[in-house]
Amino acid sequence: MRIIIEKDYDAMSKLAAAVLLGHMMRDGRVNISITAGRSPKLMYEKYINPELKGKEWFSNVHFYSFDETPIYTPDGKKVSGDNSSALIDCFFTPAQILNHQIHLMNEENYANYDQMIDEVGGLDMMLIGLGDDGHFCANMPECTKFNQYSYKVKLTNQYPWNEPYQKSLHGNYSDYMFSMGPRSVMKVRHLVLIVNGKAKAEIVRAALEGEVREDIPASVLQLHPNLTVILDQDAASKLTTV
Amino acid sequence: MRIIIEKDYDAMSKLAAAVLLGHMMRDGRVNISITAGRSPKLMYEKYINPELKGKEWFSNVHFYSFDETPIYTPDGKKVSGDNSSALIDCFFTPAQILNHQIHLMNEENYANYDQMIDEVGGLDMMLIGLGDDGHFCANMPECTKFNQYSYKVKLTNQYPWNEPYQKSLHGNYSDYMFSMGPRSVMKVRHLVLIVNGKAKAEIVRAALEGEVREDIPASVLQLHPNLTVILDQDAASKLTTV
Amino acid sequence: MRIIIEKDYDAMSKLAAAVLLGHMMRDGRVNISITAGRSPKLMYEKYINPELKGKEWFSNVHFYSFDETPIYTPDGKKVSGDNSSALIDCFFTPAQILNHQIHLMNEENYANYDQMIDEVGGLDMMLIGLGDDGHFCANMPECTKFNQYSYKVKLTNQYPWNEPYQKSLHGNYSDYMFSMGPRSVMKVRHLVLIVNGKAKAEIVRAALEGEVREDIPASVLQLHPNLTVILDQDAASKLTTV
Amino acid sequence: MRIIIEKDYDAMSKLAAAVLLGHMMRDGRVNISITAGRSPKLMYEKYINPELKGKEWFSNVHFYSFDETPIYTPDGKKVSGDNSSALIDCFFTPAQILNHQIHLMNEENYANYDQMIDEVGGLDMMLIGLGDDGHFCANMPECTKFNQYSYKVKLTNQYPWNEPYQKSLHGNYSDYMFSMGPRSVMKVRHLVLIVNGKAKAEIVRAALEGEVREDIPASVLQLHPNLTVILDQDAASKLTTV
Repeated sequence: MRIIIEKDYDAMSKLAAAVLLGHMMRDGRVNISITAGRSPKLMYEKYINPELKGKEWFSNVHFYSFDETPIYTPDGKKVSGDNSSALIDCFFTPAQILNHQIHLMNEENYANYDQMIDEVGGLDMMLIGLGDDGHFCANMPECTKFNQYSYKVKLTNQYPWNEPYQKSLHGNYSDYMFSMGPRSVMKVRHLVLIVNGKAKAEIVRAALEGEVREDIPASVLQLHPNLTVILDQDAASKLTTV
Repeated sequence: MRIIIEKDYDAMSKLAAAVLLGHMMRDGRVNISITAGRSPKLMYEKYINPELKGKEWFSNVHFYSFDETPIYTPDGKKVSGDNSSALIDCFFTPAQILNHQIHLMNEENYANYDQMIDEVGGLDMMLIGLGDDGHFCANMPECTKFNQYSYKVKLTNQYPWNEPYQKSLHGNYSDYMFSMGPRSVMKVRHLVLIVNGKAKAEIVRAALEGEVREDIPASVLQLHPNLTVILDQDAASKLTTV
Repeated sequence: MRIIIEKDYDAMSKLAAAVLLGHMMRDGRVNISITAGRSPKLMYEKYINPELKGKEWFSNVHFYSFDETPIYTPDGKKVSGDNSSALIDCFFTPAQILNHQIHLMNEENYANYDQMIDEVGGLDMMLIGLGDDGHFCANMPECTKFNQYSYKVKLTNQYPWNEPYQKSLHGNYSDYMFSMGPRSVMKVRHLVLIVNGKAKAEIVRAALEGEVREDIPASVLQLHPNLTVILDQDAASKLTTV
Repeated sequence: MRIIIEKDYDAMSKLAAAVLLGHMMRDGRVNISITAGRSPKLMYEKYINPELKGKEWFSNVHFYSFDETPIYTPDGKKVSGDNSSALIDCFFTPAQILNHQIHLMNEENYANYDQMIDEVGGLDMMLIGLGDDGHFCANMPECTKFNQYSYKVKLTNQYPWNEPYQKSLHGNYSDYMFSMGPRSVMKVRHLVLIVNGKAKAEIVRAALEGEVREDIPASVLQLHPNLTVILDQDAASKLTTV
């Protein structure tokens, strides 16, 4: 694990962009899995999208989502995928990524997702964030087993995070989510975790310095053989070993 | 995880020898960590040592032990290292491995062992066995934390396995052992686990198909990105998914 | 370049089998390109086919041919592919390799062969032989340019080797051949060259110790970053630096 | 070979910095070989040095020079190494790289340089430029053989480039130069070539699209399995295939 601490969100975003662009420049097919969400927002907007928009040199780069939560209207019509919509908005559309370069996890392909990735040579890099509750991808506390490959989870109120999540959907609902599992993520050749902000300082410490235990799913990332963590000073403020 | 089931101990040994020799033939410096113990005994005797003895082509291959338990006489004189002695007997001497190719973990270097391996380019391959109690290397139940790199353990009777172990030393004793930790092992580029015999069928099932939990240390190996398991039919007899 | 010299053809074949089996045991999809011809005959017969026949553990291994010469009867009916027939006879049939694991170069796919291989993660290993005239794959003297990817060659008598080749076809003929080019071969992660017999001693020396020049196509292999050469003593007898 | 064409020198420099920083962020020891000279000047000044100065996260990154030309006063006192001085000025000093991270080729170590690099795990990346005459590193026309590892060249006027070079030394002289050879460079895991300016357009075309021949040393780079070329539009203006 290499931990890099930058002074602020902007500096963190700039460095994260470099490692992402660096992988994209390699010769031959490149497979990258990327995150949406708040952490990489500035990275895409300021450092990635302007660099890629209108360019063609990265036509060999393929982008893979790593989870999905389909959302439905009260009468059961599918509205969108929570994660794919976010990726389209923050990256695929503004950077003008071509359709053949975009691979999204969904109900039809999740069970076969790991094999599909294996068949194209594996993931060269994955960029992920860290949830307040220690989740990564959609590996949530209470429902993650470390030995899972890509899997499907029924959303029920046995998980304390479900009710607030459903409420956040403005009257719509979601009944299942899909995610690459811990075992899928261990196979990525270079894993990059970005976290910013004081609110995440405690979970950063727990996930990176605490015990490896399933109720803090991201603690398993300590076992990844090639993990780079890029933090701003706020997110790093409770680490004791750096 | 790729599981290969061979019909008996001899066939398992022959295939394990092929993967070991295959790695040794690569161009440039090759770093391999190997196990002693009963499981690889036939492999060394019948398929490895006769192939290497008196040859020079593998002068670029370096061998690393992955644990050690120094043994002392009742009056405190060091007798030997449990593991290094075994490796010398079953492999280094009969295969005529040169001293400069042999790197053994000990009290002086254990704390620096992971860095030492990183500085020579990492381990290309590690061959390990599986203990009846789920241990691998010297990562024993009750004393292993998944997030450990190479470490030192004081041997006390808080560990149920200690008393029988001390008794097995014929009047000598051991007070510490050293081992590469789970985190060290996750960095090996190709991990090969060999197990034979009916007596290990249950722990094989638990380690490879059960939950990833610290009281079965080898269960963490399920998370390794490039793990090959070679079993004889007896050791595989309780697996449910193959 | 690592050169391994074994005492005879049998010892060479046994070691070549080990490196081939070793690659096949890796976790995940494995892509291997293999040669037919005389050099690997004993390796397949004695050390590979009996090891694989009736087994299932290597279902993730995909085999790729690296060249082809379609052969036609005098009235233009296609008889066979010279190389695919040989691979079927010496390996695919006796080892009972399944159809979905076999990928053969032909007129339809040669132009796209490098991309096809790139799209499945590249070749992990390629096993090749060396022709008396310094050719490898179908990269023949007089028609090979070092900067070629997979390509097609019209067979004409401007090449001194064409007339004897056509005569060897017993009244049939061939007008084109296809081959992965030098540039394709440089991308293979582990290249293994096997050569045996006194008759090849001089070309072994020229290819491995002489200048890198297009009229000895195999001389370019000196530039491969991970090349293992396995020779019997006869084939190695004119080398000066080992 | 992946060719990336950016609109101008600044854009080229920015992208080259990303790939360099990207490699530096990997976990574990990282070995990088870098170039001085005019092409990377802006990259260091604007995009690399300000990013690294005063930081500690890249303490695991080791930098290697790839050639050297010792320079002497008329009475035989060594003034400096041409290349190491340039690297110190443009990168090591302004970026505050620590001494233990700097490894420079010289008279004493050149013969052992490839082995030294092999012993630390090989080079992860090398950044090079392209000379007007087709040289790369110090692999000059007339004196480069493709099958050379690191080597020493006596500077004499049999090489047309020697006289102008000696004249450029302001009364000093140089009698030998050292360089990693083509074969050394083929072993680098990711090779990055940067070229800018109209004056290099013709040699860019010859080196990247022409025949692989020793009098244009950089033409051998076409054979590298993982080559990224970053050009400005001027340098790319005579390419025909992009």
